[in-house]
Amino acid sequence: MSQSLNPDDRYLGLVTDLYELTMAAGYHVYGMADERATFELWVRRLPSCRNYLVAAGLEQAIHYLQHLSFAPEQIAYLREHPTFQHVPNDWFVRLAHFRFECDVWAIPEGTVVFAEEPLLRVSGPLMQAQIVETYLITTLTIQTLIASKAARAVTAAQGRPVFDFGSRRAHGPQAGLLAARAAYIAGCAGTSNTEAGRLLSIPTLGTQAHSWIMAFSDEQEAFRKFGQVFPDHSTLLIDTYDTIQGVRHAVASEAAMQAVRLDSGDLEQLSKEVRAFLDSAGRQDVKIVASGDLNEYKIRDLLARGAPIDLFGVGTELVTSRDEPSLNVVYKLVEQETPQGTFGRFKLSSGKKTYPYPKQVYRRQDASGTFCGDRIVKATSPEQGEPLLAPVLRQGTLVAALPSLEESRHRCTEQLSRLPKELLDLEPCPPYPVQVSEELEAELCRADFPK
Amino acid sequence: MSQSLNPDDRYLGLVTDLYELTMAAGYHVYGMADERATFELWVRRLPSCRNYLVAAGLEQAIHYLQHLSFAPEQIAYLREHPTFQHVPNDWFVRLAHFRFECDVWAIPEGTVVFAEEPLLRVSGPLMQAQIVETYLITTLTIQTLIASKAARAVTAAQGRPVFDFGSRRAHGPQAGLLAARAAYIAGCAGTSNTEAGRLLSIPTLGTQAHSWIMAFSDEQEAFRKFGQVFPDHSTLLIDTYDTIQGVRHAVASEAAMQAVRLDSGDLEQLSKEVRAFLDSAGRQDVKIVASGDLNEYKIRDLLARGAPIDLFGVGTELVTSRDEPSLNVVYKLVEQETPQGTFGRFKLSSGKKTYPYPKQVYRRQDASGTFCGDRIVKATSPEQGEPLLAPVLRQGTLVAALPSLEESRHRCTEQLSRLPKELLDLEPCPPYPVQVSEELEAELCRADFPK
Repeated sequence: MSQSLNPDDRYLGLVTDLYELTMAAGYHVYGMADERATFELWVRRLPSCRNYLVAAGLEQAIHYLQHLSFAPEQIAYLREHPTFQHVPNDWFVRLAHFRFECDVWAIPEGTVVFAEEPLLRVSGPLMQAQIVETYLITTLTIQTLIASKAARAVTAAQGRPVFDFGSRRAHGPQAGLLAARAAYIAGCAGTSNTEAGRLLSIPTLGTQAHSWIMAFSDEQEAFRKFGQVFPDHSTLLIDTYDTIQGVRHAVASEAAMQAVRLDSGDLEQLSKEVRAFLDSAGRQDVKIVASGDLNEYKIRDLLARGAPIDLFGVGTELVTSRDEPSLNVVYKLVEQETPQGTFGRFKLSSGKKTYPYPKQVYRRQDASGTFCGDRIVKATSPEQGEPLLAPVLRQGTLVAALPSLEESRHRCTEQLSRLPKELLDLEPCPPYPVQVSEELEAELCRADFPK
Repeated sequence: MSQSLNPDDRYLGLVTDLYELTMAAGYHVYGMADERATFELWVRRLPSCRNYLVAAGLEQAIHYLQHLSFAPEQIAYLREHPTFQHVPNDWFVRLAHFRFECDVWAIPEGTVVFAEEPLLRVSGPLMQAQIVETYLITTLTIQTLIASKAARAVTAAQGRPVFDFGSRRAHGPQAGLLAARAAYIAGCAGTSNTEAGRLLSIPTLGTQAHSWIMAFSDEQEAFRKFGQVFPDHSTLLIDTYDTIQGVRHAVASEAAMQAVRLDSGDLEQLSKEVRAFLDSAGRQDVKIVASGDLNEYKIRDLLARGAPIDLFGVGTELVTSRDEPSLNVVYKLVEQETPQGTFGRFKLSSGKKTYPYPKQVYRRQDASGTFCGDRIVKATSPEQGEPLLAPVLRQGTLVAALPSLEESRHRCTEQLSRLPKELLDLEPCPPYPVQVSEELEAELCRADFPK
């Protein structure tokens, strides 16, 4: 019996690292499972090739929290697992009734964020807040990673549409869907992923593959026949054999066409030659689509050299965030209410220290509305500026409907427009100012070092 | 209503690039949908940091092909899609009855493979064989990518167990499951992903997070209490505050423990100091687990410098294949039966040429059983050596049960043991000899260049 390994809402409970469950069992055994705790999730460091990040993935994270349960087969698996042989029966019974009841605050999708800023804060029973660590990290990381990469390509294209063409290069079918969503939030015009289009109402774009051209003995015939079936949506792929011959064939075929697509070779030179040929043939109406291992740098350079490209399809580099395919996202205990009182929690591991207590981020703007600095402060110490974290779940229930995808996309556009201009440059720039409050710094210094 | 974006077996039809569907509609319109065609899937080039790849993901690819259908909501979506407005009704009806009926040949999972070698060959009705391109590429790429990376870490560890600890860094929850599977095929000892353990019977390993340590006011108490619940499976994380103090606490706590875990700092120096302390305390039985941004190079270097580490947990670098997070996998039409005859198909795009006709790969070995070269030949021209592609589906039905995961893992171990030794080195070496037959080269040269 083959397995799809597609995560299923009925089986979310074990889609987590085993240690979340050992800890959960331990908290239960020691009567700590219902102690109120707060965890925060943040990116520890910005990749050197990113001046900012775009928060994304919150909807999928919330979906997970609201559907999280342990199926009978999953509980049976844990009961048989060697590690859990000494765990009392009532813990397994507890899992069977698990429902996520924590409070969640988060920074809305589409918000520009920086290192150290909590993207999400979970407060509630310690066991519940612990178990969700792995899934929350992975689901927020992938979309934040892709949205952050996509925003750069969109910026580089200077208003020309950028489409996600990367589903085949994503890390599995689900990653393709998640990448399509994240890229759209960050300003991409749409995706080639049809199911993403259906589920998310994202515009979808398709041309044809080389196999279409190869399936006809004659390139002109391939073009003409495609145009007949899709008279209003024909982008003809002209590089199967020879790009310049291809565009001649496209025009000569008298195919219905709105655009031609270049997918290989020197895109600058070819786009200029193709444009010149199209114009000379009276086809100023035909646009040029370019694809083929593009990224934000290549888009910038092509446009700087005057390549007459109207639309960019970006694949591998976008959906794998190829220059930095991971973010150092952590989820850490920051506060805990115990019978002895409420304590800030932190760690001092080499290169990995964390600040205690629930936090809020305030973003300030100058007179022109440009963002001029963030401050990370204790949530109980409000400051001037826009607070970025807002309540999302109260005891596991939505406080209000989540923003629509279009709203998150709009928010991203607006956020990017208010960033200091140098941050939008593709090259590294001096970091955007993010301060940790003096109060939080003092907490670390005077904290009792556990014995 | 939030969405999980988890792919679901009932909705696989649209998890593909839109252009697969435009082409499918076009083939239908022109009566070509049932023309028999053959497509092949291969890696165009090896990444410069890989001397070989490990094929993986076939089971999930086959699962997809056997479950592929178009749900009514998906067909309704296409009917409304602007691109498909001129497509006749009978195409949509056809989709409603879609069932994958092609023949599939493939190289078994766990096999070492190289650039240009077809991993999969699909032969059947043109429309069917076309539609599956996107999903086949993504599902075979992610597991081949991760298995190829994992094999390097396993080699570097020289027999010490390597565990996949990377679920949180994978590109979404599904990618974590797929990575756990692929890493296991490549020789990893197991995973931290609990659901992967349940679904695939992979050994799972968990220690505890820093939050467990932080949840107690005293590190010794945290250790002792963990050991009480998991007396036979306690790996204690000792770097929350100070690693050397941590190991002292671990021993002093008299906690049940089988291992300690280092997750930060100078792992060579710390592992030596921790080993020395454990030995001096009479705890020669306690093993040392290391994690924290490890990869194959760091594992090699740690062991070369005598770091007494018994088990490695590898996360980010493994599950994102961080040094090369993508493979240039293509799926191309290579042969087509038309009313005019059967033709080899190929393309000549700049830097992207392909060879026509269905192919087979023959692997030769020397007297000692070491692989000494592969030849890619026309499938109709058998040669000496072991043929790597074997039939998997006949008209959509399994020819035989797929290998078990353990069998694929065993195959990988055996394959790696027969590679020329220099290929197992982590540094680039001269390429393993892969020849394209003279017959295939001649086909390209004498092929009619389409007009």
